[in-house]
Amino acid sequence: MKFNYPTGSKATTPKISQAKVSMPPIYGKRGMSLEEELNESNAYYLSHGVAVIHKKPTPIQIVKVDYPKRSAAQIKEAYFNKASTTDYNGVYRGKYIDFDAKETTNSTSFPLSNFHEHQINHMKDCEKVGGICFTIIKFVKLNKIFLLKAKDLFQFWDSKENGGRKSIPLSVFEEQGYQLEYQMNPLIPYLKAVDKIIENL
Amino acid sequence: MKFNYPTGSKATTPKISQAKVSMPPIYGKRGMSLEEELNESNAYYLSHGVAVIHKKPTPIQIVKVDYPKRSAAQIKEAYFNKASTTDYNGVYRGKYIDFDAKETTNSTSFPLSNFHEHQINHMKDCEKVGGICFTIIKFVKLNKIFLLKAKDLFQFWDSKENGGRKSIPLSVFEEQGYQLEYQMNPLIPYLKAVDKIIENL
Repeated sequence: MKFNYPTGSKATTPKISQAKVSMPPIYGKRGMSLEEELNESNAYYLSHGVAVIHKKPTPIQIVKVDYPKRSAAQIKEAYFNKASTTDYNGVYRGKYIDFDAKETTNSTSFPLSNFHEHQINHMKDCEKVGGICFTIIKFVKLNKIFLLKAKDLFQFWDSKENGGRKSIPLSVFEEQGYQLEYQMNPLIPYLKAVDKIIENL
Repeated sequence: MKFNYPTGSKATTPKISQAKVSMPPIYGKRGMSLEEELNESNAYYLSHGVAVIHKKPTPIQIVKVDYPKRSAAQIKEAYFNKASTTDYNGVYRGKYIDFDAKETTNSTSFPLSNFHEHQINHMKDCEKVGGICFTIIKFVKLNKIFLLKAKDLFQFWDSKENGGRKSIPLSVFEEQGYQLEYQMNPLIPYLKAVDKIIENL
């Protein structure tokens, strides 16, 4: 894991980690978040010359930096910025790949409130100039992962904007999406689904 | 400018900004860094539906975060991480575009010490799977900007690794690179050079 957020306040208990440990250990690695699983998958793809796909660093607004003698510059005050794009992008088969990955504890649908409008707009912009965009959603309690093409996501997003339903039913993922089954290497072989998207371009 | 680094020590004077202000104001915008000029160019390309290319956020290792009540989480201790990739990537004409941009105050050659090995390796990995990689170099004192294909850069890098010269002569940029002339919109029309790269693929 790249970033480390120790608890700032003493009263805070590490709820997220506890939740992760209680996940069914049948598939995937016990206690790994979807982000970690995808980072591991991307490391496999990279080391095998298949694709170069990275998670972007978290955007930070830096306010104050100290430059102590004989040691590294230390950031003393900074804030988390809203990302203006999705989290992952890179190159596969010469194509530009762009996606976001989200976990939900819902079991029957995926709430669209997990997306920000600028992420959707970013994916629309990318698709317009020939990029391949999608989202990877993990239903944590079902331990099921789906890849859904951006076009399908846009349909639900635009409908929501016009007063339609605020979530995407699980059945949509099952019917229009690609279910991703855990395997040894890579852990989440999501580029197989991307192959199908490229075939149908 | 996205990031703000106030001077941590009182003895430090803002040398970089002063240097920028003394740049010849004939071309480009007075006081803009190459990064700012490229960000402005990318904003133009984005708003005109030409390409989606962003600078990646600076990677930060976060050590301590405070969560004050009723206000945004504040990062209290963090350090700059080495980037494992180049600074810019995105999509143009369906192709994956990846590059780094560097300024030099040298007037006769570009020192290869401006690149890190992992940046070169990242570009080699991307090119292997069909990405289009290059570097944009600004010779600040000459006020000349060149785009050089990654392949040409690799040749000099690999030669350096084998004991060859430690810089790329200006003449190489003039003969093998594409000179980029400032214009109104976008400020640095570097995708014209990318068009030529795509034509020759």
